[in-house]
Amino acid sequence: MSLVVQKFGGSSVADAASVKRVAKRIVEYRRTGHDVVVVVSAMGDSTDDLIDLAKDVSPVPPARELDMLLTAGERISMAVLAMAIANLGFRAQSFTGSQAGVITDESHGRARIIDVTPGRIQSALGEGNIAIVAGFQGVSQNTKNITTLGRGGSDTTAVALAAALGADVCEIYTDVDGVFTADPRIVPPASRVHKISYEEMLEMAASGAKILHLRSVEYARRYGVPVHVRSSFSQHTGTWVTDGPIPADFRTTDDKDDTSMEQAIISGVAHDRSEAKLTVVGVPDVPGKAARIFQVLSGHEINIDMIVQNISTRDPGRTDISFTLPMDDGAKAIAGLEAAKEEIGFDHLRYDDQIGKLSVVGAGMRSHPGVTANLFDALSKAHINIDMISTSEIRISVVTRAELLDDAVRAAHTAYGLDSDESEAIVYGGTGR
Amino acid sequence: MSLVVQKFGGSSVADAASVKRVAKRIVEYRRTGHDVVVVVSAMGDSTDDLIDLAKDVSPVPPARELDMLLTAGERISMAVLAMAIANLGFRAQSFTGSQAGVITDESHGRARIIDVTPGRIQSALGEGNIAIVAGFQGVSQNTKNITTLGRGGSDTTAVALAAALGADVCEIYTDVDGVFTADPRIVPPASRVHKISYEEMLEMAASGAKILHLRSVEYARRYGVPVHVRSSFSQHTGTWVTDGPIPADFRTTDDKDDTSMEQAIISGVAHDRSEAKLTVVGVPDVPGKAARIFQVLSGHEINIDMIVQNISTRDPGRTDISFTLPMDDGAKAIAGLEAAKEEIGFDHLRYDDQIGKLSVVGAGMRSHPGVTANLFDALSKAHINIDMISTSEIRISVVTRAELLDDAVRAAHTAYGLDSDESEAIVYGGTGR
Repeated sequence: MSLVVQKFGGSSVADAASVKRVAKRIVEYRRTGHDVVVVVSAMGDSTDDLIDLAKDVSPVPPARELDMLLTAGERISMAVLAMAIANLGFRAQSFTGSQAGVITDESHGRARIIDVTPGRIQSALGEGNIAIVAGFQGVSQNTKNITTLGRGGSDTTAVALAAALGADVCEIYTDVDGVFTADPRIVPPASRVHKISYEEMLEMAASGAKILHLRSVEYARRYGVPVHVRSSFSQHTGTWVTDGPIPADFRTTDDKDDTSMEQAIISGVAHDRSEAKLTVVGVPDVPGKAARIFQVLSGHEINIDMIVQNISTRDPGRTDISFTLPMDDGAKAIAGLEAAKEEIGFDHLRYDDQIGKLSVVGAGMRSHPGVTANLFDALSKAHINIDMISTSEIRISVVTRAELLDDAVRAAHTAYGLDSDESEAIVYGGTGR
Repeated sequence: MSLVVQKFGGSSVADAASVKRVAKRIVEYRRTGHDVVVVVSAMGDSTDDLIDLAKDVSPVPPARELDMLLTAGERISMAVLAMAIANLGFRAQSFTGSQAGVITDESHGRARIIDVTPGRIQSALGEGNIAIVAGFQGVSQNTKNITTLGRGGSDTTAVALAAALGADVCEIYTDVDGVFTADPRIVPPASRVHKISYEEMLEMAASGAKILHLRSVEYARRYGVPVHVRSSFSQHTGTWVTDGPIPADFRTTDDKDDTSMEQAIISGVAHDRSEAKLTVVGVPDVPGKAARIFQVLSGHEINIDMIVQNISTRDPGRTDISFTLPMDDGAKAIAGLEAAKEEIGFDHLRYDDQIGKLSVVGAGMRSHPGVTANLFDALSKAHINIDMISTSEIRISVVTRAELLDDAVRAAHTAYGLDSDESEAIVYGGTGR
């Protein structure tokens, strides 16, 4: 007998009919004799509706109260799902994040899970229940306040619970068939990735692929939880995120057939339109000035991504420092830096939110030289200028103009042989990275 | 400095605009330097909406899950109210029933409060917060499941918290001006009752006056909490429920003027359309048979109200036993008794849901004979037949045909001199009860 954690997102439980459909699916699995823990998000757009309600009474609602409010969303979906399961003749009990033992730090709105103590879940399973757990939420360790984990946090709840319970698999049900080599809305010949390593998935998630919450992948890697991302609207195999083999009990015919596909050098092409570029123009070229800029930003809790430093276009004794950051933090960053303008001594700021970031991710890069050259070649042939570049061991990211991003993604996807009709054709060679 | 618990019902927080209005009212009071704990119900009809959602997935939702679902309603209203208060520049923190220490038994859907341990509320007050508490809900003592107290339960939360915190006053804000001598929709000349004893209020609540939850009055009496029922839409004094004087700090000009009105013999005329009458026809007139009937009913957790036993109309060796019960329990009672038909040996059941109950309540009955005669006389003059009668020390209840109930209420209201234009005219005399 195995234990599976199944997570259903808001689009899978958008209304009563969807809840019933999901209940049926859960019960079908439970009928095979396995234990099931279900993590569920709020129904459909209900979280947005609650945010709208908050904004109706307060332009800047206190974070503690906003968390209290938003957690009502999963409370509703989990109770309704438990009812729908009970109506099919199975036992089910729902649990809030707090009841499920999801202990977090005190950061309202983007709390991190510190510990999971799922004693009540284990008892419920022991009594023959399907346990339904509210995603996205927990309780803070010291003040015992209700916290939320941020958008997409239900994925993390699911993986963290799977780790704490020693589950065999964590299944993330969503409205697409899994992780794709690129966004199929931009690249129609994109294909489903059958299996991907934690590290690659981390890079994909960090590069704008929205299919899994970044922290959920970190959690999965740390505890070695095999994650299966799949559609709640079909029975197809989706994408396995794991460094090991696909767990034997969970292999389907699909899984046995296409192990050959696991050798791809490039797993996928991710893109991100949510960042902006801020340039600090005319920074005195004196030790400590750059550090001061980034201290100011981190003091405002702004995560920056790519950084480039150039000799200033205005004054050879000064430098221009450019970096990318989430567009949502743009105003805050500008205000913070302007306040420190005299101290740092820069000339002015230049803000650009019309940028796009493309990332190519693949563990095969480590052993296959030429991957970078191949990308630059493809982009150049498509007449796309590269504005900034950053790399990790298994990722190359470039910033382009926003309006050229789709073209860039298509060019890269084709260049790495990921278009589904030619997916095995590519050979890298040449100049190294 | 005093401490007040203020309870706002769903109609007072029906939408964002109402929430802001209530927040303003709370803040105005807080500004006077007093501590405030607010108990709030779910917004408007949201509890009904949640019940509808539950019914969409399950005809008979499990009680534990229904409680989990319904408690989302207050979670939303309390967080939004806390935000609205914060937006006015005051500190506010919201607490679920569980966080507020409202400990109940395990009876989902109609749990009773066993204990209140409001440590977190006291801390929040100590830190200068207005504490907002979810009404209607608690956490069960043994299983730590979330429970609800039943319709109107927020009143009980408020009074129980007021008792546990040693509050000076518990204010129940509603959409009417207080307790009336009769329902003004039926009796236009009904007037507001200025002050009423716990005992009278208990009888009124038990007799169908919906303004206060019965258990909240029991709680108030047990702990001597002065309750002030008033409108959230005006600043008028409402109705004081207390056996003592109106607390000095909370007296208004109104209160000083009309102490004379406190001498009324009859406090009010309540009515109830929610009961039905069930007659067990042809019960063998043997010891233990009647007891067996009521054992069966209590085994199904059905509360019966009035009971009448007569010689059977069909067989002088048998009796007919009639009783009233909540209409909602009718089907359950019939099924339970039919199952025990052979054992009890009755002939058949007769069910009548077209009855109405009128109750006249007043502590003055004890010392003023003639009150009953006066009622019968008034009803007879209005050509209203009385079907059943029951009395307590301070209440007379009669059952009439449902369609005559309004006429009966009006006749009684007039007969006891409660019509507001003649409110001091009545003298009882005569035949005793």
